[in-house]
Amino acid sequence: MIKISIIGSGNVAHHLIQAFEQSGEVELVQVFARNRQSVAGMVADAKIISDYQLLEQADLYLISVSDDAIAEVSEQLPFSGRFVAHTSGTKPLNILSDKNRKAVFYPLQTFSKSKQVDFSQIPICLESQNPQDLEVLKKVAGKISRHVYEIDSEKRKSLHVSAVFVSNFVNHLYRMGEEICHKNDISFDILKPLIIEVADKINYLSPKDAQTGPAKRGDQKTIQAHLDYLQDDPEKYEIYKLLTQAIRSKNEKL
Amino acid sequence: MIKISIIGSGNVAHHLIQAFEQSGEVELVQVFARNRQSVAGMVADAKIISDYQLLEQADLYLISVSDDAIAEVSEQLPFSGRFVAHTSGTKPLNILSDKNRKAVFYPLQTFSKSKQVDFSQIPICLESQNPQDLEVLKKVAGKISRHVYEIDSEKRKSLHVSAVFVSNFVNHLYRMGEEICHKNDISFDILKPLIIEVADKINYLSPKDAQTGPAKRGDQKTIQAHLDYLQDDPEKYEIYKLLTQAIRSKNEKL
Repeated sequence: MIKISIIGSGNVAHHLIQAFEQSGEVELVQVFARNRQSVAGMVADAKIISDYQLLEQADLYLISVSDDAIAEVSEQLPFSGRFVAHTSGTKPLNILSDKNRKAVFYPLQTFSKSKQVDFSQIPICLESQNPQDLEVLKKVAGKISRHVYEIDSEKRKSLHVSAVFVSNFVNHLYRMGEEICHKNDISFDILKPLIIEVADKINYLSPKDAQTGPAKRGDQKTIQAHLDYLQDDPEKYEIYKLLTQAIRSKNEKL
Repeated sequence: MIKISIIGSGNVAHHLIQAFEQSGEVELVQVFARNRQSVAGMVADAKIISDYQLLEQADLYLISVSDDAIAEVSEQLPFSGRFVAHTSGTKPLNILSDKNRKAVFYPLQTFSKSKQVDFSQIPICLESQNPQDLEVLKKVAGKISRHVYEIDSEKRKSLHVSAVFVSNFVNHLYRMGEEICHKNDISFDILKPLIIEVADKINYLSPKDAQTGPAKRGDQKTIQAHLDYLQDDPEKYEIYKLLTQAIRSKNEKL
């Protein structure tokens, strides 16, 4: 069985620990956590360490810490020539210390400790320095997910920009929608089925073909009425105008 | 059993016909369609009419036509004093002709003919001129949906602006994400589980609490790297900048 150790105890580490333990097809050797309490109960106590010197032999060390700590943590590992991957979507492979074989093992999802996720549905993006190591990564990823991709550091950067648009920015649009509702004493619940349906549509239609609404129709009367409605809220006004123009410009290019 | 006739044969009309026929608790008296073919097979042939003069007695006439045609269609109805509702989210109740009792029966969802929806999950927003008529509307809506709301024309306008943010604009962000992926030869499929999860989160967390990403963290290095990445695409650059500022400004107000 492939032996893995995880270094870190944040959201991603938590979900990885759970996924590996549930798979039963990977041996989780150790978990490094500065604060042992943060992973207590998730693995056997004896496997939790807070001292890098106690790290035992493993086929793969997964560094799952905040982006800014990856380089330093990888420097502190008290061994060389072993196989080490980080789990970040934004950092290149080369941020890892040269003393070990480098790789990236990036599960592309938004994680909250309080919300369970089905790891088998989460895409895992892999990159490594050599083909043999890539095979190990693929094997490990395949134990916990049905969606495994090879993505180099350059593509991962594009993917991350794209992810900001479809997740962070989308969530902020939800927030603006909620604000408009609450300001007018309307339950945001009314919009939830719409939000779910718009997301679900990407499984059936390209976003290009799924576009609806006043901007798509070129319905100037409705667009103007909405802008008038938003005139006391410059931030929403500007976002409405810019996104409407963006949708219009796509149509004009047809 | 409450008797309903539907005037129109577009997306919303189609889904309403299906929902009423499936409920079995409402009598669908007639469907008016200028082109009989458009609803053929959905209801018995004898119930399909293309001449307003053939409209029989019903407890409720639902006008489900394009926004710009509502006023004219309601004028053409060859009767008065009866109960007539339109199904639009953008038009006020008063767009309907004065000769009949007016109401709005607005299912808040994005409809495509090719994609089935579970009508019981769709919020229906109701408005009517008098309390007795409202009871009829509630009864009808309750036969096909578990989410029935009373929303007046003023609130419905706010709701529609909000819906544009959380659906039309969100879908355009999906499109921009897809464009970035395709330009870099990355499958958009990798982002789909993320998109679904971000939408699903609204059922557990307020969008305010669900916000993640570089803007939320104030991670200027990543934000600048993304802006540099987008500098050859002015439209995406501006949208990235504006939405990042919007997320930042929320944080600064904390």
